[in-house]
Amino acid sequence: MAGIDVAIVGATGAVGDLMRQVLLERKFPVRSIRFLASAKSAGKTVEFAGKRYPVEPLRPEAFEGVQIVLSSTPSAVSREYSPLAARAGAIVIDNSSAWRMDPDCPLVVPEVNAAQLQHIRKGIVANPNCVAIPLCVALKPLHDRWRVKRVVVATYQSSSGKGAKGLADFEAQLQAWVRGEPIPPPTAHRGQLAGNVLTLDWTLDTNGFTEEENKVIQETKKILGDAEIGVCATCVRVPVRVAHSEAVTVEFHQQPSVDEARAALRQAPGIRLLDERQGEVPQPIHAAGTDWTYVGRVRSDPSHPHSLCLWLVADNLRKGAATNAVQCAEELLRRGIVSPRP
Amino acid sequence: MAGIDVAIVGATGAVGDLMRQVLLERKFPVRSIRFLASAKSAGKTVEFAGKRYPVEPLRPEAFEGVQIVLSSTPSAVSREYSPLAARAGAIVIDNSSAWRMDPDCPLVVPEVNAAQLQHIRKGIVANPNCVAIPLCVALKPLHDRWRVKRVVVATYQSSSGKGAKGLADFEAQLQAWVRGEPIPPPTAHRGQLAGNVLTLDWTLDTNGFTEEENKVIQETKKILGDAEIGVCATCVRVPVRVAHSEAVTVEFHQQPSVDEARAALRQAPGIRLLDERQGEVPQPIHAAGTDWTYVGRVRSDPSHPHSLCLWLVADNLRKGAATNAVQCAEELLRRGIVSPRP
Repeated sequence: MAGIDVAIVGATGAVGDLMRQVLLERKFPVRSIRFLASAKSAGKTVEFAGKRYPVEPLRPEAFEGVQIVLSSTPSAVSREYSPLAARAGAIVIDNSSAWRMDPDCPLVVPEVNAAQLQHIRKGIVANPNCVAIPLCVALKPLHDRWRVKRVVVATYQSSSGKGAKGLADFEAQLQAWVRGEPIPPPTAHRGQLAGNVLTLDWTLDTNGFTEEENKVIQETKKILGDAEIGVCATCVRVPVRVAHSEAVTVEFHQQPSVDEARAALRQAPGIRLLDERQGEVPQPIHAAGTDWTYVGRVRSDPSHPHSLCLWLVADNLRKGAATNAVQCAEELLRRGIVSPRP
Repeated sequence: MAGIDVAIVGATGAVGDLMRQVLLERKFPVRSIRFLASAKSAGKTVEFAGKRYPVEPLRPEAFEGVQIVLSSTPSAVSREYSPLAARAGAIVIDNSSAWRMDPDCPLVVPEVNAAQLQHIRKGIVANPNCVAIPLCVALKPLHDRWRVKRVVVATYQSSSGKGAKGLADFEAQLQAWVRGEPIPPPTAHRGQLAGNVLTLDWTLDTNGFTEEENKVIQETKKILGDAEIGVCATCVRVPVRVAHSEAVTVEFHQQPSVDEARAALRQAPGIRLLDERQGEVPQPIHAAGTDWTYVGRVRSDPSHPHSLCLWLVADNLRKGAATNAVQCAEELLRRGIVSPRP
């Protein structure tokens, strides 16, 4: 069948697993596919479209003939292997943070800045941070009309942001916590998450912000293509399995009314606008498993004349990672940057 | 023994229960004490200082001879009974929201504005909202030196904000959730809290903010005594049992350095300043059961030239309610507004 020769790197992780699923859901035209992972996954197999595939070790030769690589690995692995895949002729859509701020790598949310895919200088497209993606999906239609000046965001991030290991750690903690037993020492999170919230679930950078907060701050400006936007972030891990929530306060150069902002959000791609006056509000349990950025609680900020508040929720593994990567792959086809092989 | 004649109203609730405990912990000079509650608690008894007391029905006559009433009831009950207690000669320290914005009722956080206790015109002192109390404890030393211009706060509020009923609801949800069973319909929270976060766990007001958010917005200005402060709040319920957390961004008229702000916070009453560079950060599981407002993550806001970010956590039932009320009672004695009887 005509289509694209694809490889998934980090195929056995939480995001890699979903990349495989999302390719099928969205009927991505796959001609051939291979699944790569670290030596730890040797001997595993995965199913794709009714067929079993071995999980192959991540080696430079594994990229031969591959056109698009969907990669979700730790940054150190990505720094080594993504350039090798690119050198072998593939375009890598890379979910790690390794390439995001590289001026030669576009950082793409298709609803926001798909045109950046015309400038792939290193063969690598960076898939943004899972907080920055839905934030930019929601800000884009507002930024286009009223220009964003400053964003203050506080997050409510789920355990699955740390992947399958995070979820397993959280589950073990939960089981003990609800029984009133001692919480086992954390194995992925940096403390007790069951019945608690953690702002230091990420490494602290020298500027007092965590690495996660600095990603949100920097990537939001790059994705929206406006270095003058001020961004302030507090990232917090909460005891939720899947989907990240964000409390967002946005200052504009020109002030939209709440109704105008709602109208712009309602028409924007990727967004489901909910109306709290109808009792509807974005929630992790509803967003999990979907590809939408749910936006609600749109209201005028009483503390500033040109500011609005929003509440948004999106599935961090799907729109925050796997779905966004597959959407980037679809854009590469649509733009003729990658062409199906017979 | 010489001391104060005290009554606790709402004695069988989560906060009433703690008011009793905190009076003992802080060795408040109690001459006599009575415990009042709605008819639902008829026949119950409570222990105080090794003695059992009947829970008496809430009736106007029950306040005879009482000097200080510590009250934690729904607002409708407070609107009816607190004026009756005041008419009977008591000073009521009222934890409901009924009197907080009444210009004739001081709204007191002792570390911040104890002097307001000199102006008790209606016999009622209002105990502030559980988010506003630690927020004002943390803002006060900064406001005094650099004057707060604007506060943007996003909260992470525990189930116990809805009292014993909230905790029972959360517990039932949790037990089902960890077993993968269907979540029982909520009985106190307004949706599934186990594994989820809720921004509509409070009634929505007409301005698009919830009642809880509007309390934080209004009470913060009244407690700090500065109507010009802009406040924006997003209140969110998270699956935590006890202690509320707050992500706070504060703009000042004059900018403190991070070190200056830390020094001011470290010396301020009621605050435990934690240093994230030492791996210490405020967490609900550590704040629960204490009377401190834990402050951490003090950092310079990259999105604004005169702005700092903070992260704070306090026990919503203790400093956010019972302890603050008992501290107000202590202030009444210290100032000679109420005097021990022989």
